[in-house]
Amino acid sequence: MRSRFQQGLDELRDKLLRMGGLAEQAIDRATEAYRTRDAKFCQMVFTSEDDINQAEREIDELALDLLAMQQPMAVDLRFILAVVKINADLERVGDQAVNIAQRVLDLISEPEVQLPVDIPRMAAGVTTMVQRSLESFLDGKAEIAEAVLQMDNVVDRMKDEAFVVLVQKMISDPHVTRAALNVLLIARNLERIADHATNIAEDVIFWVRGADVRHGGAHYRS
Amino acid sequence: MRSRFQQGLDELRDKLLRMGGLAEQAIDRATEAYRTRDAKFCQMVFTSEDDINQAEREIDELALDLLAMQQPMAVDLRFILAVVKINADLERVGDQAVNIAQRVLDLISEPEVQLPVDIPRMAAGVTTMVQRSLESFLDGKAEIAEAVLQMDNVVDRMKDEAFVVLVQKMISDPHVTRAALNVLLIARNLERIADHATNIAEDVIFWVRGADVRHGGAHYRS
Repeated sequence: MRSRFQQGLDELRDKLLRMGGLAEQAIDRATEAYRTRDAKFCQMVFTSEDDINQAEREIDELALDLLAMQQPMAVDLRFILAVVKINADLERVGDQAVNIAQRVLDLISEPEVQLPVDIPRMAAGVTTMVQRSLESFLDGKAEIAEAVLQMDNVVDRMKDEAFVVLVQKMISDPHVTRAALNVLLIARNLERIADHATNIAEDVIFWVRGADVRHGGAHYRS
Repeated sequence: MRSRFQQGLDELRDKLLRMGGLAEQAIDRATEAYRTRDAKFCQMVFTSEDDINQAEREIDELALDLLAMQQPMAVDLRFILAVVKINADLERVGDQAVNIAQRVLDLISEPEVQLPVDIPRMAAGVTTMVQRSLESFLDGKAEIAEAVLQMDNVVDRMKDEAFVVLVQKMISDPHVTRAALNVLLIARNLERIADHATNIAEDVIFWVRGADVRHGGAHYRS
């Protein structure tokens, strides 16, 4: 029979995965708002922010309860601390989705402008990164987490390319500046979400391996 | 005589304050780079990133050691978790300073353009927010943390004003678009630092009061 502590750890993991689902949904809706220019999806993102914040609180409180319940072993301590950190990142993914939805509202308040940047493709990339980072956590697989770190470079490049194209467009065609700036900021918000997925992947590796690959070096500890 | 655990808590607090000092210094140097257009200060920001990352790791490891050392009381648990979260925010303040320094390098690669935005004033505001949020932590004073939450509104307004002015400038004067965009992104980086200070202030309140004011509601717990 599993102990109360073990059951608590399982519950913590389930709650974090649910939190991840909420964050992914927020990115999807913000992207759908961009694609369809339908403010309804922006509203859905704004509404779900409360659920995400509530879920964040519950996870932190459960983590505190578990730490107070008994003397956890080192491996469980690392797991609980990883959850607390991943939790904070997922909440900020939700914040970024809100920022995107706000930019979309500004975009659709003006006539549509065709811009040579594929935001939905970039959004698909960062959503995959968030999913994989959580999958690596669920399965305790550091190699999936490492693949997420690689994907971050791809998203960074997409963002850089978008910047170059959009700045050129603003200079050659000043009447689209506001729209181009909104799209540029959306690309930047997506890049931040990719950064959060990267942070999560690093925390997973930290937890799985007891190693600290954060900031570049894989310093394995005994 | 203080126990080893108590000494460890003191050491954790000292390390976090030193980390805060490194993060503040990074903002100062990035701002100095902007003010003087001297790449030397950018380089100093890039160099100090390693120190900040190293300091972050040490704090996390010490937090783990303390949690493993004995069964902490609820108040100490909250303190240690607050440190882990504040630590992550300070590391990201350092990242934002790096982003600012990168934008400054791009800015000074082109002739100087006069833009009607006071970045140093905004930087002074956010630096004060970071200092106060850490001061509230050092002194355990939730009222200082609450003042930080108020200051965030002021910084947000400064950023919004900078956006309006800079977009107008880009439209009326497309040859300054690249410079104006760099300044706009610096304003946004500063706003993110203010957000991190806000997160820290919320964690302090969470720790001091056992209350959770995050996301708006002051839900005091018994």
